[in-house]
Amino acid sequence: MSFEPNGILTLTTDFGSRDGYVGAMKGAVLSIERRLDLVDIAHDLPAQGVVAAAIALRTACPRFPRGTVHLAVIDPGVGTDRAAIVAVAGGHLFVGPDNGLLMPALKALGGPIRAWRIGEHRYLARDRSATFHGRDIFAPTAAAFAAGYLRLVSVGEPIEPQPLPLPHPVATKDGLQAVITTADRFGNLVTCATDKHIDGLSADGQLHITLPDGRSLRYVRTYGDANPGETIALLGSDGELEIAVRDGSAKATLGLGPGDVVEITT
Amino acid sequence: MSFEPNGILTLTTDFGSRDGYVGAMKGAVLSIERRLDLVDIAHDLPAQGVVAAAIALRTACPRFPRGTVHLAVIDPGVGTDRAAIVAVAGGHLFVGPDNGLLMPALKALGGPIRAWRIGEHRYLARDRSATFHGRDIFAPTAAAFAAGYLRLVSVGEPIEPQPLPLPHPVATKDGLQAVITTADRFGNLVTCATDKHIDGLSADGQLHITLPDGRSLRYVRTYGDANPGETIALLGSDGELEIAVRDGSAKATLGLGPGDVVEITT
Amino acid sequence: MSFEPNGILTLTTDFGSRDGYVGAMKGAVLSIERRLDLVDIAHDLPAQGVVAAAIALRTACPRFPRGTVHLAVIDPGVGTDRAAIVAVAGGHLFVGPDNGLLMPALKALGGPIRAWRIGEHRYLARDRSATFHGRDIFAPTAAAFAAGYLRLVSVGEPIEPQPLPLPHPVATKDGLQAVITTADRFGNLVTCATDKHIDGLSADGQLHITLPDGRSLRYVRTYGDANPGETIALLGSDGELEIAVRDGSAKATLGLGPGDVVEITT
Repeated sequence: MSFEPNGILTLTTDFGSRDGYVGAMKGAVLSIERRLDLVDIAHDLPAQGVVAAAIALRTACPRFPRGTVHLAVIDPGVGTDRAAIVAVAGGHLFVGPDNGLLMPALKALGGPIRAWRIGEHRYLARDRSATFHGRDIFAPTAAAFAAGYLRLVSVGEPIEPQPLPLPHPVATKDGLQAVITTADRFGNLVTCATDKHIDGLSADGQLHITLPDGRSLRYVRTYGDANPGETIALLGSDGELEIAVRDGSAKATLGLGPGDVVEITT
Repeated sequence: MSFEPNGILTLTTDFGSRDGYVGAMKGAVLSIERRLDLVDIAHDLPAQGVVAAAIALRTACPRFPRGTVHLAVIDPGVGTDRAAIVAVAGGHLFVGPDNGLLMPALKALGGPIRAWRIGEHRYLARDRSATFHGRDIFAPTAAAFAAGYLRLVSVGEPIEPQPLPLPHPVATKDGLQAVITTADRFGNLVTCATDKHIDGLSADGQLHITLPDGRSLRYVRTYGDANPGETIALLGSDGELEIAVRDGSAKATLGLGPGDVVEITT
Repeated sequence: MSFEPNGILTLTTDFGSRDGYVGAMKGAVLSIERRLDLVDIAHDLPAQGVVAAAIALRTACPRFPRGTVHLAVIDPGVGTDRAAIVAVAGGHLFVGPDNGLLMPALKALGGPIRAWRIGEHRYLARDRSATFHGRDIFAPTAAAFAAGYLRLVSVGEPIEPQPLPLPHPVATKDGLQAVITTADRFGNLVTCATDKHIDGLSADGQLHITLPDGRSLRYVRTYGDANPGETIALLGSDGELEIAVRDGSAKATLGLGPGDVVEITT
């Protein structure tokens, strides 16, 4: 399997916009190859929150052109024996810890996924800290791939990357149960059910969504189909079923959040 | 009217630095033309707060060189019949929803403002979500203009863009009343009165600013003209009259904020 | 002393990601030279918090390649008679206010430090505000150096830059006392003691760290050497002694923060 870099390197971390750690990683990248184009995807992610970061990566990474390198560091296991990996799918290359963080994005790209454990190579920092592999291992490895200085066959042994346990909808007698996985900053409640789960349910596209308190919601195509203040269900921009309040926050209005369960029936 | 792109594309959104939505827009831009230079202006703007974002755009955009494309997405009306527009003024091009967001920046650039409704074109996403036009319509349109792939005559029908109702100072018997529009993160209180409103008031440049509680403030040129802890009035960096506390926060000290009114007299 | 720019210009400010001030500075830079590569190090730094910003700069800047220009604006003294300076060390160039902000990064680069007061030059904004030197003085000066348009000999008079008073460890009968300087966003407590202070203390590398409440901590190499939930001391990624809780927050667990003192004994 080969990878043809396009010179773009994205960054996703749980470091803050208020400290110097992201900056140190950017400096480490540009010290390998000054001409790379850095693109921030997200920082300040919940400290050591692998699931939220994995979903952000899945939302953003597949939209980049083939040949992009994605550097992602949410790494609660730094300093333990978790592996550092390079993984490839759909013409994109990812560098990060082997804790499931990269898997949803890799799967979203489609096609086979291959991964390698990062061994010793000449671009790693010489004096490596035991606590900041983002700067000393992941950043220089990602930079070397984005610059075309490293090849997949030479980086290390193949590895089967760790999966990330994400919730899936559960079939019921007359439909599905889906769990709320995240609330976005508009207060929309995103569930684990997607268009792929829902498409086969109803012959006419009509669905009923029932909240934990028994209230039933209309399933509409877009916010404009709702009345101001109405609570609705609709498919979000990556195909997930979402609960939303038009011109408001479903999270605040309904008092629901990650872990709560909704019923989908025809 | 023509537009000559310089390859710079700025981004301003109310998406968060903690999710993947800004990243998805950047990926959509770079998938149209990988060589564009992305510049973040502001994200995490108050959710669906068009006025605050419009002021941030007005502060930043006119400082860029001619030929810059500004992509701005604060879009509470996504999925309704609000138009998507391209607008041009002073050699800059803006792409965003037609909800008044772009108008203060367009006016600040000076000269005639022209706008077009974005119709169908070949750079739009093929599978367009009903809820994320930032990624599927605005980003690819902005990218295509920044790359020189689209021309204004071909994007759609001319449109008169929506205005943004911003407060203006009100003339009084012996001066002006001005409302506080925003508090910046230093706690400075920015009013709607600018140097243009104030210049004609006083022959000698002397002014008195009176707070709602009747307290009178000195009008000075810069923070260094105030004593530590003193509350003063001065012209801010875009010419707006501001209330500030030297080495402190006027917002916290005075308990004032957007909507409160100050008197300006000679 | 000469400086050879590589075209990279980093930005560190206490302006917010929610207003237009950082964007205005970026526009001012790109209006001097559109081809410069902007890299955000940190924004939203504590308003007017020179020490926190100085530490972030020291963490990030030395990791960039030689020839990088670092623009840093945390400037509580804007509008007073504090100088605006250009400073050079180790092949990097810094532009910012002369309030100690730049000194830790300059020292971390090693070698001699030289500085000049920024006088009049042709790249400064023509209409300069009294309150936003970041946009009108610092940004265009940094851009002109990054583009190779200005030379150090022509920028102004040499100046001895202001130091930044940072805490240092204090020797005790059988070791050191070190003060906690910052808590990072993971809740790790970073002290002022570094590997350089500690290396000479113990012949066998064994140390004991004692908290203010008398509790003694193990001194380990990395998080993986601790039990889950254990409070430990270890060297952080820039060589500082840190107090950490594995898989937790030392700040929250211990109730300690900047200003608290720990004892280091052999």
